[in-house]
Amino acid sequence: MKSDAIVGVDVGGTNIAAALVRGRRISRRIAADTFAQGGFERSLRQIKSAIAPLHRDARSIGIGVAGIIDSHRGVVRYSPNLRGWSDVPLAKILRAEFDRPVRILNDTNAICLGEWKFGVARGHDNVFLFSIGTGVGGAAICEGKLLFGANGFAGEFGHTVIDHQGPKCVCGLRGHVERYAGAKFIVARARSKMARQKSVLAEYEVLTPEIIARAARRGDRVAREVFAETGYYIGTGVSNLLALFDPEIVVIAGGIARAGSILFTPIRKAARSMVMGAEHRRFKIVPASLGDDAGILGAALFSKLAVSEPEL
Amino acid sequence: MKSDAIVGVDVGGTNIAAALVRGRRISRRIAADTFAQGGFERSLRQIKSAIAPLHRDARSIGIGVAGIIDSHRGVVRYSPNLRGWSDVPLAKILRAEFDRPVRILNDTNAICLGEWKFGVARGHDNVFLFSIGTGVGGAAICEGKLLFGANGFAGEFGHTVIDHQGPKCVCGLRGHVERYAGAKFIVARARSKMARQKSVLAEYEVLTPEIIARAARRGDRVAREVFAETGYYIGTGVSNLLALFDPEIVVIAGGIARAGSILFTPIRKAARSMVMGAEHRRFKIVPASLGDDAGILGAALFSKLAVSEPEL
Repeated sequence: MKSDAIVGVDVGGTNIAAALVRGRRISRRIAADTFAQGGFERSLRQIKSAIAPLHRDARSIGIGVAGIIDSHRGVVRYSPNLRGWSDVPLAKILRAEFDRPVRILNDTNAICLGEWKFGVARGHDNVFLFSIGTGVGGAAICEGKLLFGANGFAGEFGHTVIDHQGPKCVCGLRGHVERYAGAKFIVARARSKMARQKSVLAEYEVLTPEIIARAARRGDRVAREVFAETGYYIGTGVSNLLALFDPEIVVIAGGIARAGSILFTPIRKAARSMVMGAEHRRFKIVPASLGDDAGILGAALFSKLAVSEPEL
Repeated sequence: MKSDAIVGVDVGGTNIAAALVRGRRISRRIAADTFAQGGFERSLRQIKSAIAPLHRDARSIGIGVAGIIDSHRGVVRYSPNLRGWSDVPLAKILRAEFDRPVRILNDTNAICLGEWKFGVARGHDNVFLFSIGTGVGGAAICEGKLLFGANGFAGEFGHTVIDHQGPKCVCGLRGHVERYAGAKFIVARARSKMARQKSVLAEYEVLTPEIIARAARRGDRVAREVFAETGYYIGTGVSNLLALFDPEIVVIAGGIARAGSILFTPIRKAARSMVMGAEHRRFKIVPASLGDDAGILGAALFSKLAVSEPEL
């Protein structure tokens, strides 16, 4: 193992991305389907096939996985997106397969590490990052340390309450941020407005937050209202992050974080107007800068840092 | 300075408590009024008079102060409870007076340090502590480190939103935890119920949360309802702490934390029912164990730890 490269892997509910990583440099990318609905063995085969062409040139393997991860023991405790994954000793399984040290962590934690060490959050000691997609995941750097928490659940921004009497979230509970900012709820907000107002969105059979964002930037009134409201709800949640973590920087990742000012202006306005002592605070709320690279870079970095600890 | 003792001081909006501290042991307690309404010079004189009889026997001084504290520079940036305290270099002033290293920190941070090192949170790496009184302050230990945040504001649990359309808080913003759990709002909840129902509370001219708690424990229906509702609101806020920090332990300090199950049962029920994945989480929600000692012990400890850093 003369190489200083590491295999970085990002396992999402839909896609697997793997690559060789040296510091900030990524090479030999591999993409695969997760086949999350195919059950544990099927997805595991996909993960192995993404790592197999790379591992010989790497000294270790780092993997970000959507779900609740016990990074100390290398176990996927539970993943809402990977069917049948419950208490899976993933690190041990892949260690046996590839004869390399393997470390795993939550996928949003990996993205946060990547943006912190190589992206827009570089140099800050207190960072909160959340990712908006199907779900809303989050992760925190506190005083220069990634926050895992007692159960590996820390940073669950999507499931914080902004209205204790609000509508029911995917998880069954009320008024969570994800209930307002998750992709299908953004689309539902558009559909409900389209029933009452004209919109270019009516031309699309399948709507996504990205399509709505494009229409909003082109001036469509329904689409603009959708983003103003979505931004207000997200900003309300962000005010709680500011109150509790007091980060220098809040980073927003995921597809719609590229929507620009139609999203960030209402988020910043709501966050600032709902947090106590805004005039005494310095903070910024910005989009992530590394796109899909962040998760791969962060997973590789975690493996590098963690491999000095006792092995699994 | 042969002594290994430290002067620990807790400066609240009403009282100042000082003592000599050796590890967990407290001796020679001194109590004084803060005279917070008398302005900066008046309160400063009170703080000096509390420290003066003790400092000769101590190697350093640690002070917890209600407000936004810049612990790195030793400056009280702003304190809602101390009139006229704005950007006061308190550490430097007291250093000149007593010829001892002086460190200052937020008072709830001091209580949290005290409970973490000597009290109910001992041995845990992830702790959230909040204190319920006139206001609701908070503090976090994340992965074994006290969280200050970018501006020294971290842990402001009292000003997190649980209902973005809720009633206005003391700070002017809507639906914050303090708006439901601060002392005067607990009392107002009782008065509004007393207008419609009989209660032993009618016998009291001045009501406090402690009086209401006593009546609740004795079975008064109005008082019991007040605590059930207060606990529900606090528990909703706690569910956000669990989602974001994932602490092993949530510690509740302040007068009404002694109310026992009439408060903790509804808090635990609401927190557990409103947090995603409760069945996968291990955590406990408990009252603080050190009472007023926690702030003195924590301030002294902070001074001891920080004095190894470059002096002010």
